[in-house]
Amino acid sequence: MARRERGMYYAVIMAGGSGTRLWPMSRRNRPKQSLKLIGERTLFQQAVDRLSPVFPPDRILVVTKSAHVPLLQPQTPDLIIDNFIVEPLGRGTAPALGLAAVHLRQRDPDAVMAVLTADHCIADIPAFHQVLAGAQSAAEEGYLVTLGIPPTFPATGYGYIQKGEILSGESDQPVYRVKRFTEKPDAQEAAEMVSGGEFLWNSGMFIWRASRLLEELQRQMPGFHSQLLEVEASMRDPREYAATLARVWPQVGEQTIDYGVMEGARNTVVIPARIGWIDVGSWSSLFDLLPRDPAGNVLIGPHQTVDTRDTLVMGAKRLIATIGVDNLVIVDTDDALLVCAKERVQDVRIIVKQLENAKHTEWI
Amino acid sequence: MARRERGMYYAVIMAGGSGTRLWPMSRRNRPKQSLKLIGERTLFQQAVDRLSPVFPPDRILVVTKSAHVPLLQPQTPDLIIDNFIVEPLGRGTAPALGLAAVHLRQRDPDAVMAVLTADHCIADIPAFHQVLAGAQSAAEEGYLVTLGIPPTFPATGYGYIQKGEILSGESDQPVYRVKRFTEKPDAQEAAEMVSGGEFLWNSGMFIWRASRLLEELQRQMPGFHSQLLEVEASMRDPREYAATLARVWPQVGEQTIDYGVMEGARNTVVIPARIGWIDVGSWSSLFDLLPRDPAGNVLIGPHQTVDTRDTLVMGAKRLIATIGVDNLVIVDTDDALLVCAKERVQDVRIIVKQLENAKHTEWI
Repeated sequence: MARRERGMYYAVIMAGGSGTRLWPMSRRNRPKQSLKLIGERTLFQQAVDRLSPVFPPDRILVVTKSAHVPLLQPQTPDLIIDNFIVEPLGRGTAPALGLAAVHLRQRDPDAVMAVLTADHCIADIPAFHQVLAGAQSAAEEGYLVTLGIPPTFPATGYGYIQKGEILSGESDQPVYRVKRFTEKPDAQEAAEMVSGGEFLWNSGMFIWRASRLLEELQRQMPGFHSQLLEVEASMRDPREYAATLARVWPQVGEQTIDYGVMEGARNTVVIPARIGWIDVGSWSSLFDLLPRDPAGNVLIGPHQTVDTRDTLVMGAKRLIATIGVDNLVIVDTDDALLVCAKERVQDVRIIVKQLENAKHTEWI
Repeated sequence: MARRERGMYYAVIMAGGSGTRLWPMSRRNRPKQSLKLIGERTLFQQAVDRLSPVFPPDRILVVTKSAHVPLLQPQTPDLIIDNFIVEPLGRGTAPALGLAAVHLRQRDPDAVMAVLTADHCIADIPAFHQVLAGAQSAAEEGYLVTLGIPPTFPATGYGYIQKGEILSGESDQPVYRVKRFTEKPDAQEAAEMVSGGEFLWNSGMFIWRASRLLEELQRQMPGFHSQLLEVEASMRDPREYAATLARVWPQVGEQTIDYGVMEGARNTVVIPARIGWIDVGSWSSLFDLLPRDPAGNVLIGPHQTVDTRDTLVMGAKRLIATIGVDNLVIVDTDDALLVCAKERVQDVRIIVKQLENAKHTEWI
């Protein structure tokens, strides 16, 4: 395939998740990225805001589910509606990114895509831009680049990446070969990995040539790759494309990019990204993001407290009064309320699962 | 004063309190007794229900504040509207009962009044009726009768009554002279009083001739007694009565019947009342009243729990989800929510006080 020296650089924001761990604020039809969890802009708006200085609007794409488009699109009037790549239904990150890759290949065979998330907070945006620039260079050389976050605690909620030999050390942006990707570890494994200094958190942000991803999909997920080619072949006609996608996508198997592609991929590298990256994946991680009062509380919305410590109160209209409690997460919405021990916030998923099983769809 | 041998027996239900300790369910304009806290009838309706077998409706009176009449009166259509004795504003139990006493004296100089509460639960109603009959006899002999509850734990939230010599032991309804009334004790005093067996809880239920109460008021609260006579003198003309009450009542000092009358009264007696009396004075006492699930929880309203123990969830419409919590009281209302450690429920008053101080009258 003829290939220009440098493809255009695109940002692809993944905004298809629903974030059940932030229930009851996030819901099936009110996903996490559409919420104003920190400050006055939604997480999705913040994801776009931090890209705007380096990507023009026509090179910012969004991959999401059709159900989320009416929520997300009005939040970012500067983005081009055609740049919303809409899955009829979510099939995991591998199909979502495969779909984005064929869209980009149609625009530019050498397109480089930065896969970015809409459910993280990035505190050091200049550093983030610098990392994106360094990653672009590595991607142009054909590498699959992962951004790795230097761990700050032995997290069991993330996958880890073990650094291998250094690839290029000349700049202050070192690039390492990936020795291995690991799944979410248990507490002991996490402690060992973090103390050793060789492991980074897998941020879920990747930079690669669209064509390189498609190569890997062809090699590692050939069935899905064929489905993708069928979709790509229909792209010249919008109606045919819509019909093909609607027919093919429900037959696509669910797969994550980590397991389906990265763990078995060739020429994977990792760039340590010291960018103030903070996951907003759970109430406790959100808690860690927000400024606390002297008693260790984060109190949002009308509240009245007596002897309350280390507690997150996320309210809106109604008054929330707390007495003699600590290490709680209290999240109040119009129709549902969560009261959860801080160390148990991961189990919010169980509540959502219970509601699903009981067919209480009004609350999920 | 000429006096018939036996006066008529009246019930006087005190329903003037607002019950800040049951905030956020009880409010200034939605008092505790107007709420369905246990079962399908409000506490006020239950108070009337349990009297109806022994008092005809025209001999059941209600003392309350004008603000509560529109709430309470529609709950008991059988009661006579003229039997609502309405204070322009609450001045404590001594003035409320003094006002009831002059009303009754106007109807019957020898009237016996049973002073009953609308914020307790009485489980053994036949026993209650028997106690009321025994108390009537003692009251007709001129005694001021208190119903004393045999204590079941060393409560610090009640006053206590020390039994003296037995007055009449012939029936299975013994009557004891009161040795002394005591204020709410500290924990050590309470433990001593309960272990000794001589002390009973002061239930706030009293039986006496209206004229005997007025005698004591004349002797012990002469200023208030004069104010009361002024009100009584206006009673023949409803307009004059309303005007007099509105003028006099704001000048009446606040006083409790216990401190203002009973502690210094002559011929006080106590009848131990084994009637399944349970205070509904706080969320923890209500918690004790309601049947628990195997995990020790009381869950009212839509709920979803994970690892939740010994917790009271009082909801209504909204879903309440709890994870990994124990010994909490969670009370949800349309505009305010309480999350409180079970052992701290008394401090709900502090929240109400804070709201008052902050002029947040919408929530009190």
